[in-house]
Amino acid sequence: MIDDPEMSNALLPIGFRDLLPPYAQNEDEIVQWMIDAFSDYGYERVSPPLLEFEQSLLLHAGSGIAEQTFRVMDPETHYMMGLRPDITPQIARIAATRLVNSPRPLRLSYAGPCVLVSGAKHSAARQILQAGIELIGIDSPQADAEIIIVTAEAMGVEDLLPPISIDLMMPQLANSIIQTENFDEQQTKLLMRALDRKDVAAVQQYGGSLAGILTTMLQAAGPADRAIEMLKGLDLPADSQQLLDRLFTVVQAVKTHNPLLQLTIDPVEFRGWDYHTGLCFSVYMSGISGEVGRGGRYLSNNGEPACGLTLRPDLLLPLINDDDCFQRERVFIPFGYTIEEVRGLRQDGYILLMGLTEEEDALTEARRLNCNYILQDKELKAVAD
Amino acid sequence: MIDDPEMSNALLPIGFRDLLPPYAQNEDEIVQWMIDAFSDYGYERVSPPLLEFEQSLLLHAGSGIAEQTFRVMDPETHYMMGLRPDITPQIARIAATRLVNSPRPLRLSYAGPCVLVSGAKHSAARQILQAGIELIGIDSPQADAEIIIVTAEAMGVEDLLPPISIDLMMPQLANSIIQTENFDEQQTKLLMRALDRKDVAAVQQYGGSLAGILTTMLQAAGPADRAIEMLKGLDLPADSQQLLDRLFTVVQAVKTHNPLLQLTIDPVEFRGWDYHTGLCFSVYMSGISGEVGRGGRYLSNNGEPACGLTLRPDLLLPLINDDDCFQRERVFIPFGYTIEEVRGLRQDGYILLMGLTEEEDALTEARRLNCNYILQDKELKAVAD
Repeated sequence: MIDDPEMSNALLPIGFRDLLPPYAQNEDEIVQWMIDAFSDYGYERVSPPLLEFEQSLLLHAGSGIAEQTFRVMDPETHYMMGLRPDITPQIARIAATRLVNSPRPLRLSYAGPCVLVSGAKHSAARQILQAGIELIGIDSPQADAEIIIVTAEAMGVEDLLPPISIDLMMPQLANSIIQTENFDEQQTKLLMRALDRKDVAAVQQYGGSLAGILTTMLQAAGPADRAIEMLKGLDLPADSQQLLDRLFTVVQAVKTHNPLLQLTIDPVEFRGWDYHTGLCFSVYMSGISGEVGRGGRYLSNNGEPACGLTLRPDLLLPLINDDDCFQRERVFIPFGYTIEEVRGLRQDGYILLMGLTEEEDALTEARRLNCNYILQDKELKAVAD
Repeated sequence: MIDDPEMSNALLPIGFRDLLPPYAQNEDEIVQWMIDAFSDYGYERVSPPLLEFEQSLLLHAGSGIAEQTFRVMDPETHYMMGLRPDITPQIARIAATRLVNSPRPLRLSYAGPCVLVSGAKHSAARQILQAGIELIGIDSPQADAEIIIVTAEAMGVEDLLPPISIDLMMPQLANSIIQTENFDEQQTKLLMRALDRKDVAAVQQYGGSLAGILTTMLQAAGPADRAIEMLKGLDLPADSQQLLDRLFTVVQAVKTHNPLLQLTIDPVEFRGWDYHTGLCFSVYMSGISGEVGRGGRYLSNNGEPACGLTLRPDLLLPLINDDDCFQRERVFIPFGYTIEEVRGLRQDGYILLMGLTEEEDALTEARRLNCNYILQDKELKAVAD
């Protein structure tokens, strides 16, 4: 993607990059596709600013986001402003203030750049691109399912990208099971660590009477159908069964809408879902290491139930080749034609390169500018090499 | 545009704003329209980062841009990084480095947000949106004309916006005329100030033997045809005549391509065009005070001739009404339908609001969510109020 990485590195801080042709356009096309899908399902675009007062930007956010936030002083007020590392807290702010009186469920979408103080795992990028949706004011399995379904629609960029898979998690589940036994602090810690590491031997060592259930849950991780088959047979405490039933209902709802979507379940996963209160999911795409999107259920500002998703269109760029379908054919228009005369070609989808001087050899010029055609006697002629 | 300005002010620093529905989408549509027009004429998108090292961001820029740049320290290198107040210096950097070997003329486009330390005239906005083009590596009247013509195409957003007018200037012209006389420093200063203020009496007082010519030039300001008629008759020094002839040639070229475009000429204007070396222009739109775009000819990095233009799509938002053509019809899909069943409606351009719970009264729900239609027995029924 970078023509000359050394030159790029010499010019820009680590984690920042210039997107050149055709990548800048490809990125724009991918984002536009996502935004259009969001819009088609009633998610209305909002666009918060790049900077806002630190205390409002970080109001409901964990310490992670604060550490990742560049700050500058507002010379007008002498308050500190933060450069957003994440758009989602801004959407929560808008939903709870400016759009507090809009009918619920409130469907909002957003897309835009964010800046991180240091790179995240899987990527050194410090400027990232987010595109996402939030469904605010409703807590139902169908609402969770809608977020997943719309995600699948937004990621199906004209069959240009590989299919996605979505990994479903219920982060409270492991803890809700463990809390039914009176394990001491140390044993709870060791057991949670064993679950986190998917270490079956350690789970059996520290799991006590729950060892069997937890081992089955570990082993159930994988394709949703098989996972559900294994999890159905478990004898769980009521609270835990409720969480699991919710997960099953969401899977069923998603499959009803989109039977082909690849779903996996990771029933004991909990790490990294600190502020979430229900179903969570990671989005993967073959060819990309790490998540290309993530989301889940949480409580928004004012305690409103919400489910949301953030995609990372910038991570998809390496999957789109130079000669892919976003590229159009280029026509060299020799000097002397007017814009009016070639408007039809523009409407037909050609890119028009207007000649700016009387060329001695227009054909050579057309080749030099990588055109596929040249306009001669008001007709398109292919430019052979 | 702001539902509750007080609440907005309480939440965000002055000059920053949340764009809410439908404005965020309207802005996106306008930018997309512009970018598509740029692309249709071979201007390829580049996307530089929001932040880069201060010394590279401000390398060829005047002091104005430095004063408007927020800075943060890069914790990796301890160098200062600037948050761009303007994209054009970044495009010049890219053209002179990463794209130095791409064929000329190089046609580049860009679109994205910029952040200013304090608001500019005509607007308190500190986050602005730029969309523009640069035509690099050629110095010809046809190149100047192309920038103007493509501007007109980019501003003709589906007949949704009022027509633009473009004011043409040749900032070197006044000075090139005055320098032919040996006015002392004081008189030169007084005369330039008189021209700047369009003060005919003062021009006649300080203009000496040039008073007649300069007065005619002042009076010629206005519609291009009339201005050219008046300016043609002047007896100018060779250098000045050359500048004027260039202006005339550009006007002729623009009119050949687009006879309907409204052009004005301001032959003595020079203020604010400090680094420009040839034809400059301001873009106006009725209903908007101040420029909605500006550009001109200059020397890019490495001394390459270049002509560029920057539009401000964010300034156009107040001209687009809520009920304008970007809005689509909304259909409420009662709970129970699958995405597959309603895919045809999506393809027909409807926005689909999926019911998330079994409604007792789906029609009331459809109304509450501002839908125009409801799907009943697989058919669309209008939702009467």
